[in-house]
This record gives sequence, C-alpha cells and structure tokens, in this order.
Amino acid sequence: MTSHYLRSATFVTSVFVFYIAAAMLVPALVDLYQSNADWQVFALSAALVGGIAIGAGAATQGAMPPVSKRFAFLLVNALWAATGIAGAVPFLESSIDMSIADAVFESVSGLTTTGSTVISGLDNLPPGLLLWRSLLQWIGGIGVIALGLFVLPFLKIGGISYLRIESSDIGDRPFARLSTFLLALVAIYVLLTLACALAYLLVGMSAFDAVNHAMTTLSTGGFSTHDSSLGFYADRPAVLWVGTVFMFIGALPFSILIFLAVRGRMDPAGDPQIRVFLGYCVAFTLAVAIYWRLTADVPFIQALTHSAFNFTSIITTTGYASSDYSTWGPFVVMCALAATFLGGCSGSTSGGIKAYRFYILFRMLGSGLEKLMRQDSVKSMNYGSRRLEPDMEAAVALFVAVFLLLLVVFSVLLSLTGLDLVTAFSGALTAMTNVGPGLGAVIGPAGNFATLSDTAKWILIVAMLLGRLEILAVLVLLSPAFWRW
Amino acid sequence: MTSHYLRSATFVTSVFVFYIAAAMLVPALVDLYQSNADWQVFALSAALVGGIAIGAGAATQGAMPPVSKRFAFLLVNALWAATGIAGAVPFLESSIDMSIADAVFESVSGLTTTGSTVISGLDNLPPGLLLWRSLLQWIGGIGVIALGLFVLPFLKIGGISYLRIESSDIGDRPFARLSTFLLALVAIYVLLTLACALAYLLVGMSAFDAVNHAMTTLSTGGFSTHDSSLGFYADRPAVLWVGTVFMFIGALPFSILIFLAVRGRMDPAGDPQIRVFLGYCVAFTLAVAIYWRLTADVPFIQALTHSAFNFTSIITTTGYASSDYSTWGPFVVMCALAATFLGGCSGSTSGGIKAYRFYILFRMLGSGLEKLMRQDSVKSMNYGSRRLEPDMEAAVALFVAVFLLLLVVFSVLLSLTGLDLVTAFSGALTAMTNVGPGLGAVIGPAGNFATLSDTAKWILIVAMLLGRLEILAVLVLLSPAFWRW
Repeated sequence: MTSHYLRSATFVTSVFVFYIAAAMLVPALVDLYQSNADWQVFALSAALVGGIAIGAGAATQGAMPPVSKRFAFLLVNALWAATGIAGAVPFLESSIDMSIADAVFESVSGLTTTGSTVISGLDNLPPGLLLWRSLLQWIGGIGVIALGLFVLPFLKIGGISYLRIESSDIGDRPFARLSTFLLALVAIYVLLTLACALAYLLVGMSAFDAVNHAMTTLSTGGFSTHDSSLGFYADRPAVLWVGTVFMFIGALPFSILIFLAVRGRMDPAGDPQIRVFLGYCVAFTLAVAIYWRLTADVPFIQALTHSAFNFTSIITTTGYASSDYSTWGPFVVMCALAATFLGGCSGSTSGGIKAYRFYILFRMLGSGLEKLMRQDSVKSMNYGSRRLEPDMEAAVALFVAVFLLLLVVFSVLLSLTGLDLVTAFSGALTAMTNVGPGLGAVIGPAGNFATLSDTAKWILIVAMLLGRLEILAVLVLLSPAFWRW
Repeated sequence: MTSHYLRSATFVTSVFVFYIAAAMLVPALVDLYQSNADWQVFALSAALVGGIAIGAGAATQGAMPPVSKRFAFLLVNALWAATGIAGAVPFLESSIDMSIADAVFESVSGLTTTGSTVISGLDNLPPGLLLWRSLLQWIGGIGVIALGLFVLPFLKIGGISYLRIESSDIGDRPFARLSTFLLALVAIYVLLTLACALAYLLVGMSAFDAVNHAMTTLSTGGFSTHDSSLGFYADRPAVLWVGTVFMFIGALPFSILIFLAVRGRMDPAGDPQIRVFLGYCVAFTLAVAIYWRLTADVPFIQALTHSAFNFTSIITTTGYASSDYSTWGPFVVMCALAATFLGGCSGSTSGGIKAYRFYILFRMLGSGLEKLMRQDSVKSMNYGSRRLEPDMEAAVALFVAVFLLLLVVFSVLLSLTGLDLVTAFSGALTAMTNVGPGLGAVIGPAGNFATLSDTAKWILIVAMLLGRLEILAVLVLLSPAFWRW
C-alpha cells in the first residue's frame, strides 16, 4: 500500500517538477534576448531537471490511488520539497558562486514566497537570474493559494474555504468542478499581476522592474531586483502606494475574487477575517506613522507612506523594505517583530498565523471567559454567516501552540550555530511566517542571509517549508501512525 | 447583588491585609533587636495598614454570599491587588528612597514570587527590609499553592488538583474538610522551609542568609540578600546544590507532599507532569553544561553545578543567579529565554506555562496529528490514571494562545517606554512567568529593574499579577458579562 502511494506521489511530483523545468525556459529566453551567457545555465537546468522529471514520471506512472487525506499529505510535502530542490538547480549552475545550501535556500525562499535572500549585488545580476527568482515566487504564490483553497480545508488544517461549500451546491453548475475554480484562479492571478505591473510602470518603474516586482508583490513574496529592495524607489511615494495596495490584495482570500469575477457576487466579502486583517494593517500603519512623526523630524505624509508600505509588507508576509525601519526606534522594532506573526487571510498567498485564526482566537477567548463564569449550555460559535465546526477551535489553538513551540525549537537550533538572540529568534520567526527580513544587523531589513552558516540556512529552509505547509501538514509525516498503512 | 459581592470581597480582603500588617511586626522585631531605627517604619506601617484593614473589615462585615465562581474571581483579584499594595507600605516609608512605583513593584514582585528587584545595594540594607522582602515571597508562595490547589481547579483554570477529587470521597475522613488540607499544607511548607534553612546553614551560609534564602527558595521567589544573588556563594558548590534541590521541591505539586506526609501514600507521584518537569530540568541542565564545557575552559563539574542551579532557578521560576549566564554564549542565552516559559508543576509555588500544560499540549499534538489522518472515533485523553476532561484541552490551548498574545502586548507597551527589543520582550516574559531576571544589560541576571521608568514598572506590575493569577482569572474581570449580575 505504502509503495503504491509513494509511486503515485512521485508521479504527480514529477509532473510539477516538469512544469518548473519548463518555466526555466522563460529566463533562458530573456538572457538569450539580452545576449547574456547565462541563458545556457537555464537551458541546461531545464534539460537536466526536465529529463529527470520525465524519467521519474515515466517510471512511476500508473493508476492513481483513491483520493485520501494520507495521499494528500504525502503529495503536498513531496511537491514542495521537490520543486524547491528543482528550483535551486539554476542557482547552483549560475555564474554567481553559490553553495548547495545557498541555492536551495534561495529557491525555497522563493517558492514559499518568503523572500529572504542570500544573494547580495542583486542590481548587477544577469536579468535571467532575477527573473527566475521572481518566477519562483509567482509560481509559489499561486501554488499556495491553490493549496489553501482546495487542499488544506480538505485536510482540515488550512482554514476557511467558501469554494468547497459552494461546490457541494448541486444546482450550481459553473462551480461544479474543480477545474473551473482553478481556471478562474489562474485567470485572476494573471490579470492581477498584469494590473500590478501596469500600475508600477505608470508610476515610473522600468519595465523589467515592473514585471519582476508585480510577480513578487502579488505573491506577497518580497524578492526585489535591488539590494535596497523598494528603497530603490523611496523617493517615489506612488511606487510604494502601488506596492501597498497590491500586497494587500495578494493577502485577501482569493475565493472572494473568484466569486466576484465569475459571478459578480460579493457575499463572501462578509468573511470576518478581512475585517481583522484590515484592522491590524491600519492599526500598525497609524501607530508607527504617528510614533515616527513624533520622535523624528519626518513629514507625516512621508511617515505614513513608509509605515503603510513596510508594515503592509510585514503583515502580508511580503518582506519588501522601503527603508531600514529598525532604526525608527524601539517601539517600531517591537511592532515589526509583533507584525511578523500576523499574516493575511487564509486562501491568499500570505503566510503567518493569519487573520482568521486571530478572529477565532478572540472569539474563543470571549466565549472561554464567559464559560468560566457560567455553567449553562455552551453556545456554538459563528464565523460570519456560517457555523464554525467545533473542531476548528481546537485546530486553531493547537496551531498557535505548536507554532510557538517550534519557534522556540528553531530559535534554539539557530543559536547553536552561533547566532545572537535577536538574529536567531527573528530569523526563525520570519522563516516560519514566510515574511522575509528578520531583525538585527545581519538579517534585518537592511541586511541579508548571505553570511549565515550553511547549517543555519538548512534550519531556515526547513522552517520556511514548515511554515508554508501550515506546520501540521509536515508534522503529520513525523507521526509513526502515518506510516502504519 | 454586585454591591453585596463587593462588600464581602472587601471584608475577606481586609482580613488578609490584616495578616500582612501583622507580618510586618516580624521585621520590626528583628530591626529592634538589632537596634536599627527602621523598626519604627515597620511598626508604623503595621499600625497604618492594620488600622485600615480593621476599619474596612468592620465596615463591610456581614453575611457571606454563597460560594460562587464569580465571587471567587472577584476575591482572588482583590486579594492579590490589595496585599500587593499593603506590602508596599514599609518600602515607601523606609530609609531608602523609593517611589510609589518602586515600592509597589518590589512588593508585587515579592508576593507573586517573581523576584525582580528595583533595589540595588542589598548587601547594605537594614535586616528588617531584607527580611520583609523574603517574608513577602514566603507568604506569596503559600498563597499561590493554596490558590493552585483549592481555588483555581474550582474555577476551571488552574490545572490538576488531586485534593478536590479525594475530598469527594466520603469515606475518607482525614481529608473531608478543607481546613485539614490547609493545615497539612502549612505544616509541610513550614517544615520544608526549616529543612532548607538548616541545609543552607550546614553548608556554610550565615544564619540570617539561611533563613532569608530558605524562604525565597522554597517559594521559588528568588529575592536574595545580596546584589550578586547566590553568586555571593559561587565558590561553595554545596550551597548551590542545596538551592537546586529545594527550588525543585518548591516546584513540585504540593498535593503529593500532603498525601505523603498525612497518609504515607505516594499514588499521585504518578502525576505525569512531574516526569515532564524533571525531564526538561535535566535536559536544559545537561545541554547547557555540555555546551559551556565545550566552549569555555570550565571543569565539567563546575559547569554542571552552575548550569543545574541557574536553569533549575529559571525553570522553577525562582530567578536566582549564581553567575551571569548571559555571558556563556548565544546558545545559553536562547536556552535561558526558552526556559523562562516553562515553569514547574501545577499546585506548586512556581509560575510560567507549567509542566502539565506542556504534557497536555504534547498529547494533543499527537492525537491532533492522528485525527488529521483518520476519521474514526476520537479517543478521550488520559492524564496519568485519570480521564482528562475535554474542557481541559481547550483551556490549555487557550491559555497558551492568550499568554502569547499578551506577551506581545506587554512587549509592545514596554518598547513604547523606550526599552530595546531584548529588554522589553524578556522583561514582559519574565514578569508574566514570575521568573525574575530578564535578558540584556539592564534587566539581565547581572542587572536589576531600578533604572526602568515608572511607566515600565507599572506595566510589569500588571504583568506579574496577570501571570500569577494564570491570566484568565484577571481577564474574566474585563469581560462585560462578569459585571452583568
């Protein structure tokens, strides 16, 4: 039984890895067009990875196992691990000198839409490599949305999906099949990316920057084509506001956009997590802007622009920086640390603990406090207009507790590699929430992850993957019961 | 109805405050015996506080309301707040210069057995004041045990109490009434304190130090009579080992000791939280000792002695330090931070998240992962030989989540007072877990809380009280439903 599952998982993974190989042809063409020798790197990588994918796919094709949670868990883990490794191949073969840990780190940071980078000197990198980084995030972004909308709710760990409920509505033909959803998702994702690129162009970005940043904005990824990230455009507030708006959109539940686009209906906009998400974005932006205005000689509108950009960037787990906010004072540093936990909505490209979990936690806290006083019947909790399954409360609380425990474990492991407290803790956190920058001189918004030891990089790679797969989907594989089929 | 409850809560609180006033006569006598003028401070404070208590008690006496959870919540909060303020009076009137914030901080840090101090120059303080600090911790310690064994389980937030179960056992006369339990508890607490003082004496402490440290060891409080804490005895390993053993005992569930003493039965020793607690004490001690031995030129036995002492001190939430462990390397600093979360057992004097919650969390994680894979019936969880109420799982997860959220809130508030990231975060944490020292140059094991702003001190006072009352018992008062009687 196990071998049948493993074979099928390998087959599906091979198909996805083949797509990754195909995607490598895009930077190959760009480098070729710009007469950059790196096109050979991508062509070679595509051939190598594609060849392995075809070989592995051919060797493992056959009848698929019935859809089951175990198969889904196995597949999800295999997909992210394998595409992460496949995406690393061009970095390894490229003209810049990267160790295996570097290459896998950059690739996994891309596919998980984390946005931490080990490459410095981005401004002088060949365009193909820059585009490959952006592409990894763009592919990772839609992968995460699909995961969050279609797979994780089925596995009962991902959160709220309106699509699943609607699909059980038999009379509802346009949504009757998964492929319709997926097609709508791809169309919306592409259109939003084009809209974002166009907006960036209009406010003065170069075409290449606009395309790259559109891909890494909408996917809340955060890779930039400049070492100074969007600080490169710090004197153009409009660029920062375009970024702020599209990062925010990228962190909204895509189910809403799908409904809006296909049906013109907005009912799921009542999703309470959106209010929570909007609420903490506004709260952090205003608090930091006011604090910065009060403590430094900065015009309020400038403080607001940079505060909105950087904190929307942290909260949506994008990870751009328009300036080194860690120099804005201790309150801002602490806010940055706190905001790193938050995340956007479920069913979006963003990571972190996510708004719906905070919504449920606050509801639980309220009802928990009430329960402490009364002994009468326990009311069941609503989520928007729907009744929340009681499982959900336990799942959310469990997630937060496990998240915290693992955060401590990763922090301790990183400190063993010699990193100081702030670097180790913020590094573990930013990896687990897929944000990007940490705090401190090394991995803060003005730094990067290049100088970390290979061991530290591998630890962070695992943390990024764990965070991206909502932790529990990976931990399941560690449970002995999983392998007892 | 509300006024009836408030009146009765005031009455009971007055009685306890009167006992605090009576306790002030002990340092008064010691100062008088040593011809120190501070005896007048204590006599005056006792008269003042005692007078207010008698007045308030006389004004509010009358029929008690029926035992109810609401009354218990109200009372528990009133008791800790009022005794905290009452205990501050001698500091305020004393010969050393202390602001109101300082005095309340020191008193609340004492009664909550936190052990953070705002006083420097302890070695030259009049004996009465030193004894008062130790007495506050000793009184706070038994208060916390009583709270944990008799009140919190009734309120369904405190954890595991074997006594409550046994008391429902009608045939069991010696345990049929609460007063028997309480008497046994007081006897054991006094005997253990005497044993600890005697042990300290035997290994070379002065009589005064032995008495003071016995009171602050067993209560896992951590106030010392020296600025260098037990570093004063750093060259006497036996002192540190005595401390280690009695801190460990103070963090064990006192229900076990009561059973053992009164009945000679040890069945509750099967309490699984003890294994968890012992497990992480040993793990941290060994990991830090080995790391320190490997990275510094320290004999292993010395590394083990100091590692055992300092990490048992952190884990049991005592807060002594025998040396500045924050200089032992980044791994040790991170371990100290992680250990600050842990805590001892429920029904002990220690704070923190506590071992039984970790035990339940790990069991939940295991069963949660299993549940993700299966759809069949959910097994109910055991705690030792007992079945765990399903409520308990949600309560534990809720506690950890709320703990984390409040940790962030307190950290942000502290950072607003200008404290850097490490000081603010570790300060909030060490206050909420009632450990004592934080991290960083200011409030680390070699520093103290004197230089913090009054605002920061008030924030920490609230955090210490919240932590001591297991957070939820305080938050209940913030729920509007609580006041709708």
